[in-house]
Amino acid sequence: MTTTRRNFIKNATVLSSVAAFSPHSFLAATQPLKEKLGIALVGLGYYSTDLLAPALQLTSHCELRGIVTGSPEKAAKWQQKYGIKDKNVYNYDNFDQIANNPDIDIVYVVLPPSMHREFTVRAAQAGKHVFCEKPMAPSVADCEAMIKACADHKVHLAIGYRCQHDPNIQAYMKVGKEKPFGKIKMVTSAAGYFDGRTTHWKQNKALGGGVMGDMGVYALQGARLATGEEPIAVTAQASTTRPEIYKEVEETMMFQLEFPSGALAACHTSYGINMNYLQVNYEKGWLKMEPHSAYSGNNGSLSDGTIINFENKNQQAKQMDEDAFAILNKKPLLVTGEEGLRDIRIVEAIYKAAKSGGRVKI
Amino acid sequence: MTTTRRNFIKNATVLSSVAAFSPHSFLAATQPLKEKLGIALVGLGYYSTDLLAPALQLTSHCELRGIVTGSPEKAAKWQQKYGIKDKNVYNYDNFDQIANNPDIDIVYVVLPPSMHREFTVRAAQAGKHVFCEKPMAPSVADCEAMIKACADHKVHLAIGYRCQHDPNIQAYMKVGKEKPFGKIKMVTSAAGYFDGRTTHWKQNKALGGGVMGDMGVYALQGARLATGEEPIAVTAQASTTRPEIYKEVEETMMFQLEFPSGALAACHTSYGINMNYLQVNYEKGWLKMEPHSAYSGNNGSLSDGTIINFENKNQQAKQMDEDAFAILNKKPLLVTGEEGLRDIRIVEAIYKAAKSGGRVKI
Repeated sequence: MTTTRRNFIKNATVLSSVAAFSPHSFLAATQPLKEKLGIALVGLGYYSTDLLAPALQLTSHCELRGIVTGSPEKAAKWQQKYGIKDKNVYNYDNFDQIANNPDIDIVYVVLPPSMHREFTVRAAQAGKHVFCEKPMAPSVADCEAMIKACADHKVHLAIGYRCQHDPNIQAYMKVGKEKPFGKIKMVTSAAGYFDGRTTHWKQNKALGGGVMGDMGVYALQGARLATGEEPIAVTAQASTTRPEIYKEVEETMMFQLEFPSGALAACHTSYGINMNYLQVNYEKGWLKMEPHSAYSGNNGSLSDGTIINFENKNQQAKQMDEDAFAILNKKPLLVTGEEGLRDIRIVEAIYKAAKSGGRVKI
Repeated sequence: MTTTRRNFIKNATVLSSVAAFSPHSFLAATQPLKEKLGIALVGLGYYSTDLLAPALQLTSHCELRGIVTGSPEKAAKWQQKYGIKDKNVYNYDNFDQIANNPDIDIVYVVLPPSMHREFTVRAAQAGKHVFCEKPMAPSVADCEAMIKACADHKVHLAIGYRCQHDPNIQAYMKVGKEKPFGKIKMVTSAAGYFDGRTTHWKQNKALGGGVMGDMGVYALQGARLATGEEPIAVTAQASTTRPEIYKEVEETMMFQLEFPSGALAACHTSYGINMNYLQVNYEKGWLKMEPHSAYSGNNGSLSDGTIINFENKNQQAKQMDEDAFAILNKKPLLVTGEEGLRDIRIVEAIYKAAKSGGRVKI
């Protein structure tokens, strides 16, 4: 089994239409377009630098045209590397002038979570569509304000849930939806990595840090997408093995979800543990994915022998291309602000449960 | 990979001495013995009928010589099938006369958990060694009384944790102890099956029912044996999807353990979910077992490519033979009453945590 070729599907009844999710079939169905949408990245940290900008060299329906950064040095470097025009470079103060820039169609907010609301609202006010990184924002109130601003200004809002664009994730979502193995009973969903940094926003509460929003939404999405249900109650346990670093936010969160069907999920997320797996036990079978939410190589298997291992060359490129294509063609976006909000509503309940020690209904 | 041949070990540094655990090497080292210990099974339900009695046809150091049952019909059937002498057949009333029966060396208590204490104490008073099925008993007080009775009467007490005799389980215990992949960070341990019965002791509180003691100790042992540590605190969530059947006891328990090293475990057990897996994430690697506590076929792998898949023809035969051999040769028993008590102490804390919704220190 390799992760670079497209393996196939033993049981045609289970995943018969999964090919519809493939980037190839998707792009093959696309008519040649006359224009690409211009994207401006706001915040030039690791994720913009190492993932989004390289991905934007592979996209067909959008391209990197602008940057928003507080660092003139970074701006110069990026301009040189990606041929970005002077007029498309903004800082956080003059950002609102982007309203007058026809080169930029989409603002992609890649800042610490505490800044997502402000820059999403400002982008919407400037009449630009918004892509916003996950976690959508630190609070439900923030998410609602972001959704409202985009609706008020008639711009689209997509959350950067790259995984939902990955055909391997779509394959297990389909199993959750179609239930070929009967009722969903139990999900274990884990997402974490060892973060050696000490002063990143991830360790800073005011900036929206804490593992639950950052990596926890992968564990949470694993459970939500695998069941196709929304949890109705949560319990949670926050902990820290490095109190000298994790003073303000949790290093690790374990949380348990109850779903309307009776399905349960045990989820764990951590900045101290390298782990990424999903296991679902159905009435009459199981699904395993490992990894289930990595940048690449997501793969798994089902109890009937089906292998899930679709090619997915660049997740971020597929995400941005599909979202740009949807905007260009007035089709629904795959992951809207409402989906981001669903997670943050649960994240808020998880924090409340961890603090109180009790079961919190959602 | 098959479960019927003895696969081998890629990484000699990790599991170099694991062969010492094999039943073959164990028995090969054994000198021919002059006698076999006689076992009387107390309680002739499914486990005695389908597992223990057939296993006792395969043992070298002990054999089935007696039965204790409330059913004359069952007694007749068993006598015919296994050639059990009339004088070695007891009911629950005349059981204490077993003290005068030199044929019987060991009483194996295979009754519902609520009866373990009474029959362990009566067997000890009769001067017989005791094998007792898991869960050891419904309460810590019961376990302590059982340990004391056996000590007072100078007889051995072994708990029927067949898994600890399985070389596949011993292999992952060794990894937990030797820590070739650094610190243990996170354990997920699941054990459950769908039980369609409605009026078994498993659904009856007075008889010691509830999934936590019965299947839950497998999930708990998975976490304890994989870490080689004792938990210092627990949280837990009990639930039931079939309230018409699970009126008195829980159908499902999720529980979370904190270990002194900082390792965490997320465990789940259920009478409504077919599941049996163990995943351990270390600082620099992982271990997976699936199943990890089945009667046969336990197997797994490590992140360095090591396969754990030892032959283990009959777990119960190996368990009883090793325990009988230990008694015959005055060697320490592998799983004593103290080990059973360790679990029940945690089980009590889990019930307390589930009831209170809070974190319970152990």
